[in-house]
Order: sequence, then C-alpha cells, then structure tokens
Amino acid sequence: MKSFIKYSKYSDFPIENLPYGVFSTATDTTPRIGVAIGDYILNLFEVAHLFDGPYLKAKNHVFKESSLNSFMALRPPEWKEAREYIQKLLSENDPTLKDNKELIERAFTLQSSAIMHLPARIGDYTDFYSSIHHATNVGIMFRDKNNALLPNWKYLPVGYHGRASSVVISGTPIHRPYGQTLVIDGAAPVFGPCKLMDFELEMAFFVGGSNELGKPIKVQNAHEHIFGFVIMNDWSARAIQKWEYVPLGPFTAKNLGTTISPWVVTTLALEPFIVENYQQDPEPFAYLKHSDNFNFDINLQVDLTPKNSTVSSTICRSNFKHLYWTVKQQLAHHTVTGCNVKPGDLMGSGTISGETSDSFGSLLELSWKGTKPITLHDGTQRKFLQDGDTVTMKAVCEGDGYNVGFGSCVGELLPARPFDF
Amino acid sequence: MKSFIKYSKYSDFPIENLPYGVFSTATDTTPRIGVAIGDYILNLFEVAHLFDGPYLKAKNHVFKESSLNSFMALRPPEWKEAREYIQKLLSENDPTLKDNKELIERAFTLQSSAIMHLPARIGDYTDFYSSIHHATNVGIMFRDKNNALLPNWKYLPVGYHGRASSVVISGTPIHRPYGQTLVIDGAAPVFGPCKLMDFELEMAFFVGGSNELGKPIKVQNAHEHIFGFVIMNDWSARAIQKWEYVPLGPFTAKNLGTTISPWVVTTLALEPFIVENYQQDPEPFAYLKHSDNFNFDINLQVDLTPKNSTVSSTICRSNFKHLYWTVKQQLAHHTVTGCNVKPGDLMGSGTISGETSDSFGSLLELSWKGTKPITLHDGTQRKFLQDGDTVTMKAVCEGDGYNVGFGSCVGELLPARPFDF
Repeated sequence: MKSFIKYSKYSDFPIENLPYGVFSTATDTTPRIGVAIGDYILNLFEVAHLFDGPYLKAKNHVFKESSLNSFMALRPPEWKEAREYIQKLLSENDPTLKDNKELIERAFTLQSSAIMHLPARIGDYTDFYSSIHHATNVGIMFRDKNNALLPNWKYLPVGYHGRASSVVISGTPIHRPYGQTLVIDGAAPVFGPCKLMDFELEMAFFVGGSNELGKPIKVQNAHEHIFGFVIMNDWSARAIQKWEYVPLGPFTAKNLGTTISPWVVTTLALEPFIVENYQQDPEPFAYLKHSDNFNFDINLQVDLTPKNSTVSSTICRSNFKHLYWTVKQQLAHHTVTGCNVKPGDLMGSGTISGETSDSFGSLLELSWKGTKPITLHDGTQRKFLQDGDTVTMKAVCEGDGYNVGFGSCVGELLPARPFDF
Repeated sequence: MKSFIKYSKYSDFPIENLPYGVFSTATDTTPRIGVAIGDYILNLFEVAHLFDGPYLKAKNHVFKESSLNSFMALRPPEWKEAREYIQKLLSENDPTLKDNKELIERAFTLQSSAIMHLPARIGDYTDFYSSIHHATNVGIMFRDKNNALLPNWKYLPVGYHGRASSVVISGTPIHRPYGQTLVIDGAAPVFGPCKLMDFELEMAFFVGGSNELGKPIKVQNAHEHIFGFVIMNDWSARAIQKWEYVPLGPFTAKNLGTTISPWVVTTLALEPFIVENYQQDPEPFAYLKHSDNFNFDINLQVDLTPKNSTVSSTICRSNFKHLYWTVKQQLAHHTVTGCNVKPGDLMGSGTISGETSDSFGSLLELSWKGTKPITLHDGTQRKFLQDGDTVTMKAVCEGDGYNVGFGSCVGELLPARPFDF
C-alpha cells in the first residue's frame, strides 16, 4: 500500500496506521479532527463531504466536530469504512485528493506547525494494574517476596477510578506537587513538595460505543468497544501515595496530571500486531474468558532528558504484550456489576513492566525504591525525577517494511510552585 | 419572607430555600432549569429575560440551558444575585410575576407532573470518607478496636475517585450486581449475584467555578467553590468490595450506581444552619485550616420499604454535622497536589454515621456486619438489602418557622438480571 504523501519507512504514521487526533494551528485556532500521515495531518473537516460509503454518507458530521467523541460513538463497521476510505483517499492510485491541488492545499497541515489537543472529552478515566511484573515488583518492595501478589490479583483485573479532569495532552508541563508524606513511621506526617516523583509507562484505550447502566459488556464482544490506543504517563507522587492510599486507593498522588500522546492508533491498525494472550493461571471466570487473541506486540521506550541537556537517556524498554490481563477482560470486568461506559472514556493499562530490570516501567522499580540509582548518559544519577527532567515515552509496532507508531508522550516536571497556601 | 405561592410550613421548598434542578414534562421533554417552590417548579427558562441585575443581565442564557453547569461556572456574587432576584420574583409583594397571569401559566409546573434529571453534567465524581463514626465502625469491624482509624485518617480527608457515568437521578432502580466474592478465606473466590447489598447515606456538593491544573484551591477560599448540596445514596456491593479493594480501593463494588436527589440546595440557603465545625485533634496542617464555621445542621433519615409493602421503616436518623472534615477541607485537600476541578463536579461526604447505633448510615453498621439484624415494622428482618427493597433518604434543616429541605433520594434494588455473560 503506497500513499502519494511521501514519508520514510521508519515513519510512525504510514498509510497502514492512520491514527486520529484533534489539532489546531496558530492561524486557525478551532480544534478539528485530523489523521496523521507521514509528517502531515489530513484535516478531516475539509474532506468530510467526500465520505460516501453506506454507513458514513449520512454521518460525516462526526468528522466536523472538535473532538472524536461522536466518531467513537459509532460501531466497528463504521470505523472500518472510515479507515478504508481514508486509505483510498491517501493512496497513490486514487485521484480524488491527489489530483485536487486546491483541496490538498487546504486539507494538509504539517504536524510540526500543529497544536495538538486531547482527542476526546474524557467522561471517565480508569486505571488498571494489569502488568504482573509491575504488580510483583511493587509487592516485593512494599510487602514481601512470597506474598508479592495480593490474593485477588490473578482472579480479576485490579483497577481504580482516576481523575478525568487532569488528563492532559503530551507537552503539558507538570508541577512537582505539595502534599503530606510520612517520613518517620509512627511519627506525624510532614507537608511539603513531594520528593519522590515518578512516571509510570502505560498505554490506554479509548472506549467506543457504550452500554446501558445495569447491562455488562460481555467479554466476547468487548473488542467492539476498544476504539484505539494512546501512550500514557501516569505521573505519581510516590511519597504522597504511600501515606494516603489506605484504605481507598491512590487519590491526590495521581490526580496532579496524567499525560497522553495525541494520536489515537485504532485497534484496526493494530490487528497485524496481535500476539498470543498472556498465559493465565488460574483459568479466569467465564465472564473474563475469551478465546481470541487480543494482545499486541508494541515496543515501548522511556527516555529521560535532564534540564538544559541535549542528551536523552533511554531508561526503559518494555512491551505492551507483557500485560497479564487483556483490554477485553478489563472492559468486561469494569462493567460486570453494571457500570456504564461512554464513548471517549479512557482506560489505562497500569505500568507496563517486563521481566528484566531494564524493562521496568517506573523509576520506583528501575531504582528499586531508590536503592539502585540509575546513571544517565550525562553522568548524573536518578532515584526519582529531578526538577526539569523531561520524560518522553514512545511506542511502535514493527511491521514488515513499515512501522505503526504512536508518536510520543512528553512531559517536563517543573519545580514546585512557591508555597502560598 | 412570604411567597404568593402557598405551601405548608413543613414544605421542603419555601422561599427561603429555592433549590435548583433540571426537569422536563410529558408534554415538553426538553430538560430545563427550574427552582422548587412549595409543590411547584418555577421554570427559569420562562423568566430568564427578567434577570436585570448588574451581573446576570448579560448572562441570563445560563438559565436557558439543559443543565446547571454554566450557572455553576459563575461566581458567588452572581449566585447571590440570582437567589435574591428569584426571591423577589416569588415574593407576595412583587407584582412582576404575581400579576402576570399569562407568565404564571407558562412558568409554573407541579413537581408531581415533572420528570427530574441530573442537575449537571458531572465531569468527575469524588467520594470522601469523612465521618469519624463511620470510619471507626468500619475499622472496628474489619480490623480491631484499638486501631480502628488508620494512621492517615485524622491528618487528611481520605477520599477516592468514583465513577461519574453511573451517578443517576433519584428514582432510578438499581440491579443487584454480579461479581466475585471470597466466601472462604484462602479458597478461590466465587462468582454470582452479590448477597451483601447495602446503601450508604451521604450528602454531596456540586463544585462551582474551577481552578487551573497545578494551582490548588486555598482552604480560605474553598467556600467560593461549594455551589450547593444534594442527598446521595452510594450503593455498595459489600462482598465484592471486600474482595476487590486491596490495594487500589473500591471499584466495581461502587460503580454499579450512585443515586442523588434532584434538587441542589445552595450553600446560600444553608447559611442559617451553619454550626460549629467538628473539633479536630491533631490540629490540621495549614493548607487544611480555616477559622470560619462551615459545618451544617442537616437532619438525615433513611427509610426502608420492602417490595409490595405500604409500610416504611425509618432505620437511621443521622445529621450532616457529624462529619469530621469540612467540605472546605475536602476541596482544599483534593486540589493540594494541583488537581483541577470543574463546575458540576460532584463530591460525596462518605457515609454519615453519628455516634449512636440508630444513627449509623449503612446496613453494614446498623446490622453490625450482619450480626445484629434490624427488624422492620412489617416484622421482617434485614442484615443487608433484599430484592425489591426501596431505600428513601431525606434531609432537612429546621429553621425558625420554616424548613429548608432536600426532597428525597429514592432507589429500589431490583433482582439480579438473568445470567447471560
């Protein structure tokens, strides 16, 4: 498959990918929906009228909105029709767009000149805890090696409700937060900027379609509600989290900001990269059992760049396929008691750590609770994040002669604001 | 203060109250904003053009919307102007509405013929755990008497992010959920309808205004963001909760549905019922300390009505004032790490239990984990909810010759749906 738009074979955004995002420009500040192709964005607002397939002909207004929610509200056959039509429009053999110079002029924007926005209004955001290596590492550090996984962990995909309002787009800086931490066991806590700031390497999916309150989504059909994926950095104030999280879970340690990458790579684009599900033992309950493979081979990487440095250090290489629970299982479990989900809801995987110590998805694990500082290329060391550190996460599927990439999820940790409260 | 609309002195909705809600009718299904007065609703859409105060003259579109979010986005002086103008419109001395028969005809609807809707689009929903008696009871039941409160409880208002999509309006039935529960310690869990269904008597406030990500709301100013209150029933699947909640908190045990009462009683209407804050020891950190009283004397009551019964039993009488943490402290803590809040966010108090056993706000506590069944007026007993039970929560402030009431928060527990997943 070839596009009339030229790009390198290492581009994240070949014609096999076609992720959706919301962008604006300095000269047109209205957020609008686009598709990434090579170094460009195809503005769907400008070509919406061309969609003439049986499903979308009467629904092309979904491409003229300022978020992807309405498009996400459609069904898989409609998403498939959209993808196939955009592939046709961009192909080197189709004249519709290729030979329309005036439309090309209007419809393409360089990604480098675009401002990216959240792809959807996120109604609710949930975060799971589905990497067995991450959960085991945390269990060993905070409990003990023989009881690393809590009894429920292999029976259900543990998760919790997160804060939707503080999900931000890649590039948004995050301030080091103030909060309470317990410095000496048994003493009173202290208040101040959190010293143990961390990232968490995650991926997250956007929900497509919805279900009615009281009617669970069956695991067999759950893929119909997995619209697509982004990279996610679940910034974590570790010292605050440790003090606050019993008994109701993480709260202010996580709601200070959660960063996602701007391009939503569709499940359709990820199909060639499906690999076997993680072997589960014990066998899951029927409501969590599905026979189709729905795990993905996606290479993940975390780079850390100190302030004023031009040298990045790759501090983690992991892979989405390490997840124990599939996203189908996550969604079936999320709704098993009747919870309703909506188009644009965001569901995070939890930190994706692999087996080896260089594949751990957080500094907590990489530095093993601060006991094994990691050394960056500039010679400085890290136990946790320092002010001015920029964290860049990347994700890419390596296909046969092409990549399907996610772009990047970037955020700088700014110093704590002056104390005035 | 007297209105030309007549009502009993025991009405929840005298001219001193004027709560906001969103309603429709069988003949006009468009949700619109109204104010409760006696047995009627004043349709603000019909009188929006009359608001001629300095703040609202140019902003009366907020009364023409289908939710309260835009009104909640305004500032306290604007809410005050609205309240005062509505009081004037409804007073027996003002001719504007009273003498305009045609407008009266259009602008009033009987509450009994209205369908109530969620008052706002709830962006995020948070639930706190702020009753010391409730937290102590749960601690005694699940840990031990000497360590009933966890170490962090008196230092910070413990809370967690809940599920916004499943917050429903009073009257919405809730199905008994399926889920995993651990019947025998150390054995494998089982899957089926949850046997231990419970209510939680709570109140919740709607956020007004907003703050920027990274800029905490100072506790001194937090009241400017407390728009008003509703009653809330935080349905809880106890057996599911117990198995799933470690280490990340309640998840599917709570996201099956959370019911709120339809009328938002404003903080302005509650001012006459302010009482002393709960005595706090240890003294809270500076970011949680405020000198003004911001606790409220609100009588709370829970009635249980079995299926096909006409006899309700009052099984709990409690009071909002039992809360240890104020809502100002809740909001300051929620944002201390930088979390942004938005107009229409909902924040629950946690179960409001008093000191005495008849003031406990959940069946878990009332039946002391099922060891002390309570007897209803019809002679049947309850440890937890039975299918067909209707739970009705009421809240009322008793003023000098008038009440400021919240109406009711009602929900029936339906049987589990047939198993088909």
